[in-house]
Amino acid sequence: MALSPLAPTAFPDLPVIAGVTFAAAQAGVKYKGRTDVMLAVLAAGSTVAGVFTRSATRSAPVLDCQAKLAADGAGGPAAILVNSGNSNAFTGKAGVTSVRAICDAVADATGVPAGRVFTASTGVIGEPLPHDRIVAKVAELTAAQTATGMADAARAIMTTDTFPKGAAQTVTIGGRPVQIAGIAKGSGMIAPDMATMLVYIFTDAIIAQSPLQALLACLTDTTFNNITVDSDTSTSDSLMIAATGTSGVDVTDDADFAGALQAVMLDLAHQVVRDGEGATKFVTIAVTGAASDADARLVAMATANSPLVKTAIAGEDPNWGRIVMAVGKSGAQADRDTLTIRLGDLVLARDGYRAPEYVEADCAAYMRRPEIDINIDLGLGDGTSTVWTCDLTHTYITINADYRS
Amino acid sequence: MALSPLAPTAFPDLPVIAGVTFAAAQAGVKYKGRTDVMLAVLAAGSTVAGVFTRSATRSAPVLDCQAKLAADGAGGPAAILVNSGNSNAFTGKAGVTSVRAICDAVADATGVPAGRVFTASTGVIGEPLPHDRIVAKVAELTAAQTATGMADAARAIMTTDTFPKGAAQTVTIGGRPVQIAGIAKGSGMIAPDMATMLVYIFTDAIIAQSPLQALLACLTDTTFNNITVDSDTSTSDSLMIAATGTSGVDVTDDADFAGALQAVMLDLAHQVVRDGEGATKFVTIAVTGAASDADARLVAMATANSPLVKTAIAGEDPNWGRIVMAVGKSGAQADRDTLTIRLGDLVLARDGYRAPEYVEADCAAYMRRPEIDINIDLGLGDGTSTVWTCDLTHTYITINADYRS
Repeated sequence: MALSPLAPTAFPDLPVIAGVTFAAAQAGVKYKGRTDVMLAVLAAGSTVAGVFTRSATRSAPVLDCQAKLAADGAGGPAAILVNSGNSNAFTGKAGVTSVRAICDAVADATGVPAGRVFTASTGVIGEPLPHDRIVAKVAELTAAQTATGMADAARAIMTTDTFPKGAAQTVTIGGRPVQIAGIAKGSGMIAPDMATMLVYIFTDAIIAQSPLQALLACLTDTTFNNITVDSDTSTSDSLMIAATGTSGVDVTDDADFAGALQAVMLDLAHQVVRDGEGATKFVTIAVTGAASDADARLVAMATANSPLVKTAIAGEDPNWGRIVMAVGKSGAQADRDTLTIRLGDLVLARDGYRAPEYVEADCAAYMRRPEIDINIDLGLGDGTSTVWTCDLTHTYITINADYRS
Repeated sequence: MALSPLAPTAFPDLPVIAGVTFAAAQAGVKYKGRTDVMLAVLAAGSTVAGVFTRSATRSAPVLDCQAKLAADGAGGPAAILVNSGNSNAFTGKAGVTSVRAICDAVADATGVPAGRVFTASTGVIGEPLPHDRIVAKVAELTAAQTATGMADAARAIMTTDTFPKGAAQTVTIGGRPVQIAGIAKGSGMIAPDMATMLVYIFTDAIIAQSPLQALLACLTDTTFNNITVDSDTSTSDSLMIAATGTSGVDVTDDADFAGALQAVMLDLAHQVVRDGEGATKFVTIAVTGAASDADARLVAMATANSPLVKTAIAGEDPNWGRIVMAVGKSGAQADRDTLTIRLGDLVLARDGYRAPEYVEADCAAYMRRPEIDINIDLGLGDGTSTVWTCDLTHTYITINADYRS
């Protein structure tokens, strides 16, 4: 698969987060000639939080992580193991057995209690996970742990992502630096499978599990929960954060830390969209003037997920009639005569009509940009929402229909 | 556009419905060299009912029809005028003026009160409707009225439909025949626009407006409301029925009449799916065992609208992992371990695993059929729902992205 035209120019330099180390290995779960498993080990004192897919058919590793986090207190050491190539989803009791075997192997090799070993799997659904191949690599992964291995970890969790995804921020609190760095995988596809999003963020901040969990959940609502490639939700989506505390800086309720973490999360979320299957346009849909924030999100998501809007963007067509349609079908309160639709600063429609200043050629030129801003003001209230998506192209169909499993 | 591979072999022979006449004409609203306006005139004594798009940005003709039906009592004469090529949607006050001009012209020419003249428009959004071109044809349309003109009307309302759509049933009630015949247009596309569905059904039955409206709304829930091509809802979708009473047979609360009307509606609904943009597969998704009928419909619609499921069907891939995903994301109560998924009679998944009797080659062979049945049993309760859809192909992208407005 060719590199996404929306890819960043380079993988960022990620800082070392004291208290966490990484290694990647070639376990041969499905792929040959590339790494497909990564292990991160967190020192004693680390707190861990996570948010996961709300799918009713979520995978065995997701269910295991959720159970462990619910029981998790303040932290001893912890570990995170992720494999690509097989999602261990819809694998019945065999899936539970696989998770346990991997967690036990990591516990034995690292000394981390099995109840603090978290796993994720991404790839084919419904095939038993050949966990022996992963277990056989745990000793190698443990021996190879290095503080500078986060970029290697980012590559090991890719499926058909066209680029590895990383982001980092440094924030100074009380004169002392706090580091945040994260990796993600996004809209890859392994038949028969769907795009799965996995995100792992590390910080040397001090923060207890409960406020860390609350902060992560809160920030997810304006970052990862507001991106969409094709409206489909994976059975494996996982977002975890671990705080090692090694900076010596307590960030509980610190707005600067929250802002920096949100920036890392938004950066990674945008990279997932930029690597959306077949994407050629990065689209920001900002809705204002809604009766409520919930209504604004309904309109933004209806627009972002509309196949007709997405194909118009692919065709570089300033097809605002389709945006009117999406607003209308969203279920949100809307009034044709108070609706304003803009492409960037170009007004397309206002007061129930095509805008008098609308110039087709200007709007068509705007649509040829790789980054498109669609601004929808409902003219009703103070509700706002911003979501990010990509276009729907022939390549999406090719990836998902033309290659047989 | 090539004829849909799912098209019926021929347009059906539609019976004459005494009390209604039709004519079509070339008004040149947008298309050249074909008919683009149809007028149906209903004799005194006809009752009229309708259901319409729930879009918050619905078109001027839709708003006008809804207002008139709400005020409509037992029937004098009535008329229905439909044009293709321009939807008169998002046209502000000019749209209202256009509707009034057309209704007044029809009233003058036919003697039907303007309050009983119903219109619909399908085509480009946001362009003022050149209603003078239609008004100029009203005298011709009135003079050309004929009882056998329903097929011509079906052709005049097409946009980029690849075939005209008609269906009919005869039902015998108390030894006397009652005729029902209807026409529809479906998933055509006129840039910048989206698929719009228009349906007109005529019967010689006797039934008052109120029970006719209730029956139509009820039957819509299991027919037109359970089809989806791409999840997008038009600003113009309209379904109307007129009962002329000329059969002399009162069908109020008659189950046989309801059954025959449902058959006509389902036939037309299926034809709309069969002409879905780019469709190569006609897909029936039947959900059983849900906690409620509402939950069953959530699962069926989530599956039918999933781009990943639709592209798998296009690729003839028995990709049941994507169906598991769609069930999981639907929001309905679901349990991985009680879920059963079948392709026709072939069991794909059961008891939280791929079914032991699953044979990839058999399922792949099944997927090569033009008609695919996906059966999902949730194993939880008695809720059921059936929806119909088509696959998502390169041709859909070509139609909606590659041709600029």
